[in-house]
Amino acid sequence: MSETALLLRPAVRADIVRIVAMLADDVLGAAREDTSPEGLALYEAAFERIAATNGAVRLFVAERDGETVGCFLLSLTPGLSQKGMVRAIIEEVRIDAAHRGRGLGAAMIRLAIEEARRSGASLVQLTSNKQRRDAHRFYEQLGFERSHEGFKLKL
Amino acid sequence: MSETALLLRPAVRADIVRIVAMLADDVLGAAREDTSPEGLALYEAAFERIAATNGAVRLFVAERDGETVGCFLLSLTPGLSQKGMVRAIIEEVRIDAAHRGRGLGAAMIRLAIEEARRSGASLVQLTSNKQRRDAHRFYEQLGFERSHEGFKLKL
Repeated sequence: MSETALLLRPAVRADIVRIVAMLADDVLGAAREDTSPEGLALYEAAFERIAATNGAVRLFVAERDGETVGCFLLSLTPGLSQKGMVRAIIEEVRIDAAHRGRGLGAAMIRLAIEEARRSGASLVQLTSNKQRRDAHRFYEQLGFERSHEGFKLKL
Repeated sequence: MSETALLLRPAVRADIVRIVAMLADDVLGAAREDTSPEGLALYEAAFERIAATNGAVRLFVAERDGETVGCFLLSLTPGLSQKGMVRAIIEEVRIDAAHRGRGLGAAMIRLAIEEARRSGASLVQLTSNKQRRDAHRFYEQLGFERSHEGFKLKL
């Protein structure tokens, strides 16, 4: 597989079902998503909330040969610290199960980093569940530094 | 000190110098900020970027007895995962050095969590540098779960 074959595009409404299927097809995601027809309305409402941010939060899909093979969410967050740095935060990273282990994830994250850079971010950050050991090696190989502890509180 | 004495309010332009001083008065922040008069323009531009998000990113200061004693940044990030969950992300948490060790940090973060809840978030997340051991205990005592590894990549 050649990395140049992977293309990034903003997700559209018609991608929602495909993206939710990827989110659910995951060891942690399986219990957290609702792939039933009734669940679709929740994701459609969320898609509208993302669209309403006018580009501050952007959902992308990665395509290869016209097929959707991955997705991620990119947030651009201005802040005061570090001389007014803009942070890019990557969330909801998935590669379709049938396409894993072929370098597509690395190619997709490299494209995400380029997108963050073009958008004026000077830092890219993400968190990965401590159970996802393979993902940690993956991000370190891409140049990320595992410098922080990630804390979550459910409301 | 009584926790009820701490008030949260959105930061205004006149707070910038005070906030930058708190960001810089920190073991990690000292080398990363510019408190010179020339540096101010960078932070003023960042303040405008925050204001332009129309509430998606909000900078708060905490006051006690009319004095600014802390600050933090709250981002509200819509996403598709977890049934269209909205995440609240806390960054740039500081308590003025003269006021540390008196429970103000815990009171401020509890107010931040309440603000996130009122804004429709169902998860609050933050990262803390692995060097900040005291902060890790602090967040765990507030009910946060240290479930993730935090990765950063400087661009």
